[in-house]
Amino acid sequence: MRVILLGTSSGKPTLKRNVSALAMTRDDEWLLFDCGEATQHQIMRTPLRTSRLSAVFITHLHGDHFNGLPGLISTMGLDGRERALVIVGPPGIREYVDTLSRLKTAYVNYPLEIREIEPKRFREDGEEESGGWKARSVKPRRPLPVYETEKYAVSAAPLDHRIYDLGYRVDERPRPGEFNVERALALGVERGPMFGRLQSGKRVHLPNGKIVEPRDVLGPERAGKSIAYCTDTRPCAESVALSDNVDLLIHEATYTSELAEEAVRYGHSTALQAASVAKQAGARRLVITHFSSRYMTAEPLLREARSVFENTEAGEDLLEIEP
Amino acid sequence: MRVILLGTSSGKPTLKRNVSALAMTRDDEWLLFDCGEATQHQIMRTPLRTSRLSAVFITHLHGDHFNGLPGLISTMGLDGRERALVIVGPPGIREYVDTLSRLKTAYVNYPLEIREIEPKRFREDGEEESGGWKARSVKPRRPLPVYETEKYAVSAAPLDHRIYDLGYRVDERPRPGEFNVERALALGVERGPMFGRLQSGKRVHLPNGKIVEPRDVLGPERAGKSIAYCTDTRPCAESVALSDNVDLLIHEATYTSELAEEAVRYGHSTALQAASVAKQAGARRLVITHFSSRYMTAEPLLREARSVFENTEAGEDLLEIEP
Repeated sequence: MRVILLGTSSGKPTLKRNVSALAMTRDDEWLLFDCGEATQHQIMRTPLRTSRLSAVFITHLHGDHFNGLPGLISTMGLDGRERALVIVGPPGIREYVDTLSRLKTAYVNYPLEIREIEPKRFREDGEEESGGWKARSVKPRRPLPVYETEKYAVSAAPLDHRIYDLGYRVDERPRPGEFNVERALALGVERGPMFGRLQSGKRVHLPNGKIVEPRDVLGPERAGKSIAYCTDTRPCAESVALSDNVDLLIHEATYTSELAEEAVRYGHSTALQAASVAKQAGARRLVITHFSSRYMTAEPLLREARSVFENTEAGEDLLEIEP
Repeated sequence: MRVILLGTSSGKPTLKRNVSALAMTRDDEWLLFDCGEATQHQIMRTPLRTSRLSAVFITHLHGDHFNGLPGLISTMGLDGRERALVIVGPPGIREYVDTLSRLKTAYVNYPLEIREIEPKRFREDGEEESGGWKARSVKPRRPLPVYETEKYAVSAAPLDHRIYDLGYRVDERPRPGEFNVERALALGVERGPMFGRLQSGKRVHLPNGKIVEPRDVLGPERAGKSIAYCTDTRPCAESVALSDNVDLLIHEATYTSELAEEAVRYGHSTALQAASVAKQAGARRLVITHFSSRYMTAEPLLREARSVFENTEAGEDLLEIEP
């Protein structure tokens, strides 16, 4: 599994950093998290192919995380997409897409499967009914599964921003063990389709009548990797719970601590707070992103985060990360 | 008056051409025509400042002419814009902006003055009532004034696309005559604010009691330039009428003539047709734009247009043109 950062600026683009988006990719399938304006332009600068995109996950409806969606949807339509696209995110997406379709602003000629994750789904037993989403709770709200494929399980939890906002966690399913080519050849398996069958966990019948089982040629199953994506948010118990023991945490760090008051006011984190979430969650690695455009370089943010959590990197547009 | 092309690709962006947008600028004020996705990114690559933007004109609501609007509006809000922005275009813009504001996707904290140009406003006396916009009429529909400032008068006419679509024409007001510096100095005017007063047509009182009139130091008034912008459209009588005698016509040329059937079907023009509109209108110069992404270079389109109208150039992103 690889992550490709597609935008690392908060609020508005700069000449070096686009607004929020990131791709997670494994083999020939990929997932998109957030879709700020010009995400389709960034995708063209990577090896990613939109025909291989399976699902889009939106954290919240602020434009810098979202305005690229109609263009991306329409371009895939022009390119002849036929298979469905799953869109996961906060309520409002359906109305948005419907309005744009009706006004002819978006061109949708393949199925969109929109999954709006209602705030009330995170309400726990005994918790009082409240109109909308109440920021923060004493006990962190439990993440909910929102998307599953053979390769990934994605869950979401509500974070603490100015508006309802979802953090996401991707757990890669366990990967098959390493394929022992020499052993397979020694057992009489020929290079070709039979290799593929064995690698995908299926037995093969050899021309000589013998049967080779996957366990004969595969090493022990390898654990899947896990990645959490937390933006935009103040530091909160939900981020920590969602990021529990992840291999890689991608967390927003809009400001340095000097601007801690702005961070509270606008619902963001400082680099120090991002690092502290990583530490509390027991994450193995932290990438900070979503930098205010006032910072000409990410150096001060990186320095601050590393003072609390050493294994931190600063996001850059088009940076690829293998967790 | 200068034109800066901000996007010259039709439908979807390529690595070299962004989707539709262009700026017309004079002195410290500018107007934006169309606002495809990532127009704000393109603006950052020019000397244009969004604080100097007075009005946006949208041709039609297809996303490749429109999806950059919420991001641009929001970025100007983040940058502290206070003065109103005029938005001129087809009906639907108000509903779009309202929906995005309500969903928090666009951040609008300064006045937007939205002017929706209803199709029925182009109906002529005796013409029958019809539900919506009927493409093409025998007699071209007359352009209507839609925006006026001290420097420009902008008019619009409905063109012939798959959906209701407006062409625009900008007539620069006559410019004051050339300022004769030597003559001003000889008359005793000192360099500084008095020069500015005279240039803007106001008389000045010299310290010695003498009065200098603008006509004493200014040459004859110079005619303003005119520019027409016709996209997306099939060739039509309205484009010809709107572009009557313009100094510069910017006309779409999505295809070469080989794809003339596609052009009809999708409501576009071939390069040959664009050139023919320029010729019929008596335009002095033609810039073709809005090229299908199938063309790796604009050469074949340019060759075709020049066979009919010699003074043609092919648009390129960030190209500046002085008509």
